[in-house]
Amino acid sequence: MSLFSRLVRFLAKDGKTYYGDAILPKGITDISKAKQARIIQGEIFGKHRVTNQIADIRKLLSPLALDDVKTVRCLGLNYEKHARESNMPLPKNPVLFYKPITSLSGPTDPIPIHPIAQEGTGLDYECELVAIIGKACSDVPESKALDHVLGYAVGNDVSHRDWQLQGGGGQWSLGKGFDGWAPYGPGIVSTQVLRDPQTLRISTKVNGRTMQDSNTDGMIFSVAKTIAFLSRGTTLLPGDLIFTGTPEGVGMGRKPQLWLKDGDVVEVELEGVGTCVNKIEFTKVAGVKL
Amino acid sequence: MSLFSRLVRFLAKDGKTYYGDAILPKGITDISKAKQARIIQGEIFGKHRVTNQIADIRKLLSPLALDDVKTVRCLGLNYEKHARESNMPLPKNPVLFYKPITSLSGPTDPIPIHPIAQEGTGLDYECELVAIIGKACSDVPESKALDHVLGYAVGNDVSHRDWQLQGGGGQWSLGKGFDGWAPYGPGIVSTQVLRDPQTLRISTKVNGRTMQDSNTDGMIFSVAKTIAFLSRGTTLLPGDLIFTGTPEGVGMGRKPQLWLKDGDVVEVELEGVGTCVNKIEFTKVAGVKL
Repeated sequence: MSLFSRLVRFLAKDGKTYYGDAILPKGITDISKAKQARIIQGEIFGKHRVTNQIADIRKLLSPLALDDVKTVRCLGLNYEKHARESNMPLPKNPVLFYKPITSLSGPTDPIPIHPIAQEGTGLDYECELVAIIGKACSDVPESKALDHVLGYAVGNDVSHRDWQLQGGGGQWSLGKGFDGWAPYGPGIVSTQVLRDPQTLRISTKVNGRTMQDSNTDGMIFSVAKTIAFLSRGTTLLPGDLIFTGTPEGVGMGRKPQLWLKDGDVVEVELEGVGTCVNKIEFTKVAGVKL
Repeated sequence: MSLFSRLVRFLAKDGKTYYGDAILPKGITDISKAKQARIIQGEIFGKHRVTNQIADIRKLLSPLALDDVKTVRCLGLNYEKHARESNMPLPKNPVLFYKPITSLSGPTDPIPIHPIAQEGTGLDYECELVAIIGKACSDVPESKALDHVLGYAVGNDVSHRDWQLQGGGGQWSLGKGFDGWAPYGPGIVSTQVLRDPQTLRISTKVNGRTMQDSNTDGMIFSVAKTIAFLSRGTTLLPGDLIFTGTPEGVGMGRKPQLWLKDGDVVEVELEGVGTCVNKIEFTKVAGVKL
């Protein structure tokens, strides 16, 4: 059981970086609106406590420090309408691929587009519910799977369809794994606050226009089913992230197709969690900050 | 530039675990023959020194502690004859997939086979040269790529063909990512000792019978080309591992096909590096040790 309600990592007005428990005005659940947080001391996946010390937030960062993240798993085709718009068969099992930890970035960071991903067509968005593992598990039954979840965030599984589907020989990771291509946040809502991850509105706007607008009740494999399946013969560790797939409405599935371009602003939102707003930034070289 | 010649991590006769620089008898290059090592103090990817303190090796462990590993990348179809035996087209670019860090294990650890991977057919071996990144890089040119390598090991990209090719919806990671399905070692030979990774005999024996016997000169994408390609728009970090693909002779490509079974002993060997000898062990549950 986590001690916080809404975990954030942030640059404070004092210039330091902290973990904190976000303080939200009454009636507001979008973590990106938080102006202050109670500072958390200790290890997020170990002994920690929420202090009474309040800090002013200057900027929200990716909710987990790179050193606290282990492995980033992603599902493909986990919403029926999205599988259909992608002209792919409905999966019999969760379709698993990975992103490297260097693809992770924060809820307001620009998404750097390297020159090789500026070529061809196919730069696309995917709003996704992200489950963060809090306690190690292997061979966990579906009925107990959510006990191992620290909480939930919203993420954008940024994808380049040419590199994903052709350039990588049919393996999707190459076209989805560039630096900064998995912004997530704005924080992590604990499972005590957000008990049911399968009833949440999830959406994407591009330059303010709604492109995806669906609900996590449309997942083919629920979060619990997914964790139970992925943990068969495989130990999931604290700090593992699972991007659980995107609903219909991606640029590839639209008629006409719509591809992101330099300067576009992409906003992904998950009910009860909040929004990530990231600007597409064509770059000369890689953009990750270490 | 690393300070060691042959990095090992080991359980010593004093019951403690150390990093060390393996001491080999004259004329021997197989690290698995090392009985002693000079203890290394400090951080492998930071400040460290090889001391004069010599410890007796009881058991060699996976060369890097789990906390020192970041991301495990693997290439598919990187030897022409293997691509042909797999009935796959020759790749235009390196074909990238990932394994989770929990798949890593040591040079003499058993390979646990979870019940779901005991079903169907297709349990297979793949001997591979493993390159370990020592210094971060992104957009590194081929001519400088090897400057970022800490050294080389040999690994076994254990695979279950049914799960790899069908059960995962065409994405290979599921059938290759189970706990303990990436034994590697027996240590890491530094690039000062092993300057050219493209001239090394590489082989697999199953129960003493040679199944793969090839040379790293057969790689379609050399280690340097692979690192240059993978680092385009993607930062490779110290502690990233790259399994560089397997040559011809896997069980799937043989006539008749040959699948590993409970109790089989698989030995992968890389010239100048040494051998990993791992026993297939059908289990009831996952076998990773945390």
